[in-house]
Amino acid sequence: MKDRLVIFDTTLRDGEQSPGAAMTREEKVRIARQLEKMRVDVIEAGFAAASNGDFEAVRAVAEAVRESTVCSLARANENDVRRAGESIKPAARGRIHTFIATSPIHMEKKLRMTPDQVVAQAVKAIGWASEYTADIEFSAEDAGRSEVDFLCRIFDEVIRAGAKTINVPDTVGYNTPEQFARLISTLIERVPNSDKVVWSVHCHNDLGLAVANSLAAVVAGARQVECTVNGLGERAGNASMEEVVMAVRTRADLFPVTTNIDTTQIVPASKLVSQITGYPVQPNKAIVGANAFAHESGIHQDGVLKHRETYEIMRAEDVGWTANRLTLGKLSGRNAFRSRLQDIGITIESEEQLNIAFARFKELADKKQEIFDEDLHALMSDEGVTPEREFYKLVASSVRSETGEVPHAGITLSVDGAERKAQANGSGPVDAIFKAIEDIVSSKSELLLYSVNAITSGTDAQGEVTVRLARDERVVNGQGADTDIIVASAKAYINALNKLHANTVRVDPQGEDA
Amino acid sequence: MKDRLVIFDTTLRDGEQSPGAAMTREEKVRIARQLEKMRVDVIEAGFAAASNGDFEAVRAVAEAVRESTVCSLARANENDVRRAGESIKPAARGRIHTFIATSPIHMEKKLRMTPDQVVAQAVKAIGWASEYTADIEFSAEDAGRSEVDFLCRIFDEVIRAGAKTINVPDTVGYNTPEQFARLISTLIERVPNSDKVVWSVHCHNDLGLAVANSLAAVVAGARQVECTVNGLGERAGNASMEEVVMAVRTRADLFPVTTNIDTTQIVPASKLVSQITGYPVQPNKAIVGANAFAHESGIHQDGVLKHRETYEIMRAEDVGWTANRLTLGKLSGRNAFRSRLQDIGITIESEEQLNIAFARFKELADKKQEIFDEDLHALMSDEGVTPEREFYKLVASSVRSETGEVPHAGITLSVDGAERKAQANGSGPVDAIFKAIEDIVSSKSELLLYSVNAITSGTDAQGEVTVRLARDERVVNGQGADTDIIVASAKAYINALNKLHANTVRVDPQGEDA
Repeated sequence: MKDRLVIFDTTLRDGEQSPGAAMTREEKVRIARQLEKMRVDVIEAGFAAASNGDFEAVRAVAEAVRESTVCSLARANENDVRRAGESIKPAARGRIHTFIATSPIHMEKKLRMTPDQVVAQAVKAIGWASEYTADIEFSAEDAGRSEVDFLCRIFDEVIRAGAKTINVPDTVGYNTPEQFARLISTLIERVPNSDKVVWSVHCHNDLGLAVANSLAAVVAGARQVECTVNGLGERAGNASMEEVVMAVRTRADLFPVTTNIDTTQIVPASKLVSQITGYPVQPNKAIVGANAFAHESGIHQDGVLKHRETYEIMRAEDVGWTANRLTLGKLSGRNAFRSRLQDIGITIESEEQLNIAFARFKELADKKQEIFDEDLHALMSDEGVTPEREFYKLVASSVRSETGEVPHAGITLSVDGAERKAQANGSGPVDAIFKAIEDIVSSKSELLLYSVNAITSGTDAQGEVTVRLARDERVVNGQGADTDIIVASAKAYINALNKLHANTVRVDPQGEDA
Repeated sequence: MKDRLVIFDTTLRDGEQSPGAAMTREEKVRIARQLEKMRVDVIEAGFAAASNGDFEAVRAVAEAVRESTVCSLARANENDVRRAGESIKPAARGRIHTFIATSPIHMEKKLRMTPDQVVAQAVKAIGWASEYTADIEFSAEDAGRSEVDFLCRIFDEVIRAGAKTINVPDTVGYNTPEQFARLISTLIERVPNSDKVVWSVHCHNDLGLAVANSLAAVVAGARQVECTVNGLGERAGNASMEEVVMAVRTRADLFPVTTNIDTTQIVPASKLVSQITGYPVQPNKAIVGANAFAHESGIHQDGVLKHRETYEIMRAEDVGWTANRLTLGKLSGRNAFRSRLQDIGITIESEEQLNIAFARFKELADKKQEIFDEDLHALMSDEGVTPEREFYKLVASSVRSETGEVPHAGITLSVDGAERKAQANGSGPVDAIFKAIEDIVSSKSELLLYSVNAITSGTDAQGEVTVRLARDERVVNGQGADTDIIVASAKAYINALNKLHANTVRVDPQGEDA
């Protein structure tokens, strides 16, 4: 029988470190439920010590998920490890993932520690972690640029101290498959008791090689791959879970492992993560891009129709590319609505929230004939439906645009409960409505990105707008969905302003230890 | 001294086979000029036998480009090869790239030919090609699933017949790096006179391994890589040129080759291809994604600022990520406008076109303070500026949208010269304007995708809208740009309708030989 390849998903931790991809607790729980449904082995839910909000989010995931192991990241210091340990307490199976940098450049310039100090600190971290769980993972940050002798030494010590998974990250995406596989083989060969632990890899995609490096490591003996949905993550992102999983499955003749993943949940997971983070998936992305399977993009190529296997090595339905299922319509009642939400992993927390959400659903069904799962996710992400009180709220808007005249917009906002109105002209209706909002708010932020994607096809589809704002050193993404693109734009802008207003201070796990 | 790795760009051929990415002759010339500026060695400009339009486009590229070799694809039949030969006649250096499938499944089910017949046909094709040029490339389609003995036999024969480059494609993206490298080594070892030809690879990205497979083949002896800008191409696309080039450069310690590419032209090329095809680049795409370099996405991470090399293995400016250069403004004159267009590779064909374009530029400068190169590309892609007479044209539009009322739009189109008006309500202003257009046109097409990206940042940026329409078996992408998102949407929809109206019949190179 083949070995199990452990799929460790870090969409909620490393993926969340993408600019503006920060998620709320509720959003993390929603993605975690989908990952559990997909049968991911380990879900890295966050970095508990980053802020109180991050701690609460990890804890909420640990409470919600029963089948997958839930993990928190922790730097190798006592506070981080204890926060991680507390955050995973409610989990059915909890893991602490602690790390410290081991490359000369990182030890000298970031940590300002000697190699001896780094080893001692790592061993201490394993000790604190073992007060909370036996499932301890240790990572050597920037292993790809570390000295092999030093890696062998620190891994030997942390295994003696109780680490059960040893992770080798290529933090800066500098490795190539052959070289990275050689590193993994060497470590497995040289580190004492290497057969007592699971070897793991964590690859970044700066040169486009994250998946290839991960797979080469698997052939060399790694039995855990750290990855993210859609390859989300800082810079060029992490290894794409869907590519790793489907390569291992499609080339079962070459890989000595199998995963436990339910691959039909891949496309739903991809869409959910894209929708929540506002990060689009390019059409030519492998597996989950709109064009990845020819017959999904409306192409009925002769060769494909007659003999599918001529050009297809995977079947679209195996990764969850089924036609959007019509889930609800104008006549659906409260119970059907509530039960469909449950099916797609959304829990309604109170009758009041259900009432608000159901009213919004009815409004949407008046404008749009068919309501799909994607529409429900967008609806539930909407500010108005969340029970928390937002600082800025959209009350009403109007726009007017006509060839030969200057586009004009009016807006009514609720600001901390008080209604305020403004009007503005702009170079287009979106510019006009953003200017009207800024007339009221004066945020002094800069608009970095603006994009719109239709959530489903057809002209009555909801547009989902992502707005990226920057102020000082902070970057936030706001999302808004509506059948009216101008309203969706206003909602997205206001969502981003609320995030800037919340102004949470988070600790960056890869920044300098203060 | 290191060997030269030949960069063979097939954005204009394989990239163009992406659904809806078909380009006009003028667009192909514009991209080809950018590829030449980048110092690409070989530009595959198209498949000349596909249609008269494709023939003319290859010919136009062959006329415009002086530094790079210009290539046309041809199936291994007399008509295809002669069309290819004619199309490249104006080139300073021209190449014919002929191919035939060699895998059992393709020979039996697509070609319906015996292996002997396939070999004989390939040799004949080289003969026809050599009447036009000595620079002949031969590809064995689906080589990744072909029998090695048969590959050795057919390659031996075509080399004797005069082929100078032997290309080994992984047509369905099924290979892994180790296995593909082994195939290349074996072929180089076993094929007689293998040292007299350049070995080439052409990898697809269905499992996310196109770049890794290409690089592994280079280590095994391949000296040409076929690739596309942004990894564009059918399904999950081809190997990304930017990733291949930067991996070879960044890991010069591992690769025995150098390329001739001017890497500072990578990001401009990426933006141009994305703008012309309407295919967005996801933010977490390696090298050319908006987040690929941390400090470009507005993140001022401590570690990065203090010691760049802690997290950066490439410099953003080396691949052309410079701040958008302010090129023109309200006060720029005709000469400045014309000369900036020339700088970015756009040739104005007549005084009349210059007049129309300059008038549009002045209109835009009234609405938008700063005009960037991206704005000029969008302006010149606009229907109104192209001298050809379009069947449908936007004359005027108006929209009105207000909370509590049904969004409403009015439109005036010119249809084959005659003005027509319509009004419609919709679920939003975009839906309303599309419905008003359909009231006039009745295209019976289906809207598959709708997306908007801001061309530059700032609230007065132009929105670039992509609309993908399907009718019967045809899929087209339409683009439109304007500071008014509703106007841009109408332009994109009309652009797509014009493409459907033109209804060119093209032969698919990978379909069944009729």
